[in-house]
Formats: sequence, C-alpha cells, structure tokens
Amino acid sequence: MRRVLGALALLVSAGLAPLAAVQAADAPPQTERRKVIIEDEGFALMHLMLLESDKVDVIGITTVSGDVWANRATALALRGLETIGREDVPVAEGATFPLLNSEEKTRRWEALYGKLVWKGAWMRQWVEPTEQSTPSYHGPFDPVNLPEGNPKLRKSDEIAANFLIRMVHKYPGQITLVACGPMTNLALAQKLDPQFASLVKELVYMGGSFNPHQVLDNRSAADFAREFENLPRREFNMAFDPEASSIVSHAPWPRLTVVPVDPSTATQRSPELLARMAKAAPPRVGAFIAALEPGFPLWDEIAAGYVLDPGIVTKADDLYVDYDTQFGPNYGATLSWREGYQPGLGERKAHVVLAIDPRRLEADMVEAMREGAQKGAGQR
Amino acid sequence: MRRVLGALALLVSAGLAPLAAVQAADAPPQTERRKVIIEDEGFALMHLMLLESDKVDVIGITTVSGDVWANRATALALRGLETIGREDVPVAEGATFPLLNSEEKTRRWEALYGKLVWKGAWMRQWVEPTEQSTPSYHGPFDPVNLPEGNPKLRKSDEIAANFLIRMVHKYPGQITLVACGPMTNLALAQKLDPQFASLVKELVYMGGSFNPHQVLDNRSAADFAREFENLPRREFNMAFDPEASSIVSHAPWPRLTVVPVDPSTATQRSPELLARMAKAAPPRVGAFIAALEPGFPLWDEIAAGYVLDPGIVTKADDLYVDYDTQFGPNYGATLSWREGYQPGLGERKAHVVLAIDPRRLEADMVEAMREGAQKGAGQR
Repeated sequence: MRRVLGALALLVSAGLAPLAAVQAADAPPQTERRKVIIEDEGFALMHLMLLESDKVDVIGITTVSGDVWANRATALALRGLETIGREDVPVAEGATFPLLNSEEKTRRWEALYGKLVWKGAWMRQWVEPTEQSTPSYHGPFDPVNLPEGNPKLRKSDEIAANFLIRMVHKYPGQITLVACGPMTNLALAQKLDPQFASLVKELVYMGGSFNPHQVLDNRSAADFAREFENLPRREFNMAFDPEASSIVSHAPWPRLTVVPVDPSTATQRSPELLARMAKAAPPRVGAFIAALEPGFPLWDEIAAGYVLDPGIVTKADDLYVDYDTQFGPNYGATLSWREGYQPGLGERKAHVVLAIDPRRLEADMVEAMREGAQKGAGQR
Repeated sequence: MRRVLGALALLVSAGLAPLAAVQAADAPPQTERRKVIIEDEGFALMHLMLLESDKVDVIGITTVSGDVWANRATALALRGLETIGREDVPVAEGATFPLLNSEEKTRRWEALYGKLVWKGAWMRQWVEPTEQSTPSYHGPFDPVNLPEGNPKLRKSDEIAANFLIRMVHKYPGQITLVACGPMTNLALAQKLDPQFASLVKELVYMGGSFNPHQVLDNRSAADFAREFENLPRREFNMAFDPEASSIVSHAPWPRLTVVPVDPSTATQRSPELLARMAKAAPPRVGAFIAALEPGFPLWDEIAAGYVLDPGIVTKADDLYVDYDTQFGPNYGATLSWREGYQPGLGERKAHVVLAIDPRRLEADMVEAMREGAQKGAGQR
C-alpha cells in the first residue's frame, strides 16, 4: 500500500505524467529526467547524489544482501529516506541469499584458497588491523536494530525482482538501473522474465576489477589496496554471488556500463569532501552526511556520477565481460576479452570505466547537494 | 660422452677444481663465482649475460618445451654455444610435454575461455596483427632445421631432470638455478628426488604475473600488453604447465626469487641496447646479438640481471606464491598471499621482484659483454 502511495507521490512531486500526455503538453524540463532505480545494500552518498540531483528521478530502491544482510539493507534505506524527507520513494527488499554461494561455503573457500580481506555480511574479523571500523556480525534473520534508530517507514510488499520487472514493463526503455551491490536480484529478475534486461534503458553497475592500482598515498588507500593487490580480478560485489554476476553479464541490456574498482583508487570519501557536501546540502541531508565515516573509495559514487555526468570518465574500454563461476581460487573474479578473443558463449560487450576525473566527480557530488537544497527550499 | 668432456673442459677453462682442493690452495677470485644452471627454451641475451659475465660460472644448460618444443630449444642452445665458442657448457634436453597440459587441451580451453595471445610451441597464428614475427609451427618430434644452420655440438646423453639432480648433489647448496621457461623439468626433478630443491642455493625464475601495467609508449609495448591486460595474472611460462608451476611453488628451495612480468614492462630489447651490447661484446658474440629481433620486454634478462646485480631491484615483496591448477578461465594464473592470508597448504614464501631500474639493468648487460670481451682476449 505504501509503495502505491509512494509511487503516486513521486509522480506528483516530480511533475510526471504518462509519456503520451507529456509529449502532447508543453513539457517542462523535469520530464527529461532519467528514471533511476537504485539497487544497493546501504544508504550513503551514492543514494544522496541520485535523490538530490535535478537530473534524475529515483523511482525506487531495491535492496540485497552484500555488505550487510538484505533486511538490514532495507532498514538502512528506509531510515535514510526518512532522514532526508524522501518517504515518497518505495523500497523493495531483495534476495537474502546468493544463488549458490554462502557463508559456510566461503569459509571452506578460505580454507582452500586463502583468507579474504572483506566478506560483507559474513565478516567477523579483519585478518590485519585496518583503519576501517569493524562491522558488527548478524545472522540473516536476526532482528535489525540500527544504532541510529529503526525506521517508521515500511518496505514495499513486493519482492525486489518483481518490482524491477513491473517497473521496466511500465517504463520500457526508460529506466536506468544503478546497481551497487551483488547481482542476485537482477539475475532473478532476468530468469523470471527473459525480457527484463532488454526493457531497461541502461544498467550501470559498480563491480568487477580489471587492473587496479593504489593511487592515493594514505592509510585508508593502503588498507583498501589489500583487497585487490593479491586478487586483482576479484571484487566483493561480483564475488559475493558469482553465478548471479555471470547471469547478468549474459543478459541483453541495451546498454551496459561497468564501474569496476579501477577508477575508484584515485578517489576517497575525505573529511573535506564530506564537509563540502554537508555544507551545500539541505540541512537534514547535511547532518546525515556529516555523520558518515570517511576513508572509503568512492566506489558507488562513481556509478552515480557517471549517470549524472558521463564527462567524469577519462579512460574507458569496450570489452566482453563475465565472471568466473568455478569454485576455485578465482571464484567470482572478473573475466574480460578484447574483441576477437571472447569465447562467444553469450557474454556481452560492456562499456568499462577505467579512470575518471576525481575533482570533477567531487564537484558533481557537491552540485547534486546544492540542487537538493534548492528543491528543498521550495518543497520541504 | 660429450657431456663429460664438456664438463671437464668447463673445469679447466674456468680454473675450477674440486672444492677441497680449492680451499687448501691459494684460492683465485674465480672460485667465488656462483655456479649457475640455465633452464630455458631458447638462446638469447639472458644466456649471453650469464655466459660472458665474470661473476658466475654456467655449469650447464637444460632445455624444455615452451616457446618452442624441447628438441628445437636444445638445438638453439647448442648452436648458440657453438656460435659464441662455449662448447664446454653441457646441454641436457628436458621434457617435451607438460605434465597435464597439451596443445589439444589448450584448444579446448580457448573454446571455453577465450583466445590466448601467445601459445609458444602451440602457436599457429596471431588473433590480431602484431609487430612480433610469426613463429613457424612444428610438431613435437619434427626434425629441427634451424634457419641459421644446425649445431654440430651434441646434447648430453642425460635427461635434464637427472642432470639437475646430479649437479645439486655434486655441489650441494652452491647452485643457482636460473629458470626462464616452463617448470616441467624442475617439477620432475623434485618429484624424482624430494631433496632436490633443498640442495639448490637459490631458484630464480622468470614467470608469473602480479599487477603488470604497460609502461613504455610504443607499438611493441602495446602488443605485449595484450598478454596481460585482460589476463593480468596469467603468464605464459607458468601457464604452459600449471601443475609443474604449482609443484615448484611447494618445493623447499632455501631461497626462491620470482621475476614476474611486472618489472619487464619498463624494459625493452631496443635496437639501441642491442647495438651497445654488440659493440662491447667479443666479435662472435656481437654478431649474434646484432642479428636478434628487437622489441621484446627483457623478461629473462631481468632474472639474469638479478643474479649478477641484485641492486637492479627497486621494488620487491615477500609473498606466498602458487599457481591455479583448476582447468578454468584462470588455469595457470598466479596466486599470491600476504603473510597471514595464505591457505597454509605447503605453498612457499617467495621474494617477488616488482620493479627494477631499467638503465642499471642495461648497464649490467653491456658490462657482462665487456667482461666477455676481456676474457675472450685471453682465451678465445
């Protein structure tokens, strides 16, 4: 029920109407905004960029297990939307478990192939000291109690994959999916409905790893470099559910853009960036930003930045991309091929972002907050 | 028989005598030279560096299939030794076939996982145009007819693995193995004699790939970058016989140094370097150098350079190293772990050379030729 109300509220607030009506009327510039669905397992700067920007309309958020379990991801999204006053955006909870991978299987994997730096929801302790805070461990069905307080807002009654399928049929060729977590929901949607991917406008996902190198010279950058130094082709989102990543890599997206680890090594969620964004943002958003932990590479923010301003990209390549689904030392690792080298087993060509302009991304991030503040002045 | 004569000639020409006798006598400085056995599948600058240098004594060459079949590798080594007047060095032919991998299996692998850039002895054509000359294709037992003429010098009657085992027992703890081809012979030697690795002074091998990046900006560098851009952990020597690479990675070498692709991307067998070396070398050696094809990264030469002058290294790391033996998309790819992350299944810590000073390496290469010319003035 809330989802329907939420969708209705969105249509009103963004000045949207069915496509035919818009074309007949004197279309306001807002109608040109790209429709975006965010697929992720948290609520942070990437969400704020897309939610506050004037350039896109976020028509829904779907959650999935990855960094945290799906129920926690859902609570974080709902609480985030409440905090910034965007109760109009529906949140559909997605898959709790990957298709084949599991916490216990990862434990066996580590016994055979070595310890992982980051395991997301399955993380109990770091192998080495790190500047990053240690996440608290939960079971998949443990009750969620967010330190910042639980949301009052309720999630959609619809399962994420169903919501995604319904939305792409409602807005065929119009939705940009920004996926910054594991691929479980997208893989399920594609296997539930073989038309799914072809009805999307573009999938932009943060995931995969090609040839990343540490660029910044500080403790956080060195800590995060541990994740790729000895496993340069393994990236957490894609390796959490390797089979889903491979399914998504074989689906017929009209346009597929991959934002791997590579461009993120030149970026960082610095205290300075957080301060600039907090200052530019609407007050409630600013308070939320000011409370965020600094140090992380701007993984997801590059994906959002690419949607808002493709001009941030300074180096890209068009490559066939897939993920290793063998349960070996490279389970979940990125596979890629130049034209002519690919095996031709249905893997798709993707636009792979290899480097960006970090200063321009940061400016876009601040600008999105400023746009939010301007909207907020009228609406909140 | 020739092998015995060859070994005898070596002892005389290098002024060597059995260890006890040397210790009792007024030892000349030559007795401090490191004993080296070269394991490889060709004859080029790496061989010349070690054969001409004053700092080491090459007590034998063993051959193996890799870039070419073992019979061709043997002919190349014999012909090379003849050309430079070093008929005293014995050449023992090694394994023709990898332990499990094969030409046909590689064809099936490519059908599943994509085309390879370089396949060595199994190479029939390039996928894309390249500046490198196309090698002629041969079967494993085809008669060898070198374009430059076949050698008159005969190979040893002993199989490479047996020669290696005999030598390390004869000179326990004294031999540096410089291995620049696939690991088949070393793996066989280790499985024939579990003491083998522990009796070596140090194994230095060119192989593996960690996080290589194209450094030089020219056609050859771009061509060779194709080998690692989309398979950054796969390196030809190690992937030709992945099971042998893994066996060698589990053997108890007192010291193990890995020279992967990484440092080679800043180096190149340039026409200028060849000219400098040819000028400094003894005339017969100089003529041989002048005829070499330019453009290749100095893969093997870094391994030889490390033995002659470890000071070329500008960046190194101590990592546990192994190779992927699963017949998947990363068959033969390098696996590595920082301390604390390794699975603890017998994999060994290796000293991994990640970057070198290319100018210093080049100077060492020219210097080795100069030393050869000085020796030659007296002996040839």
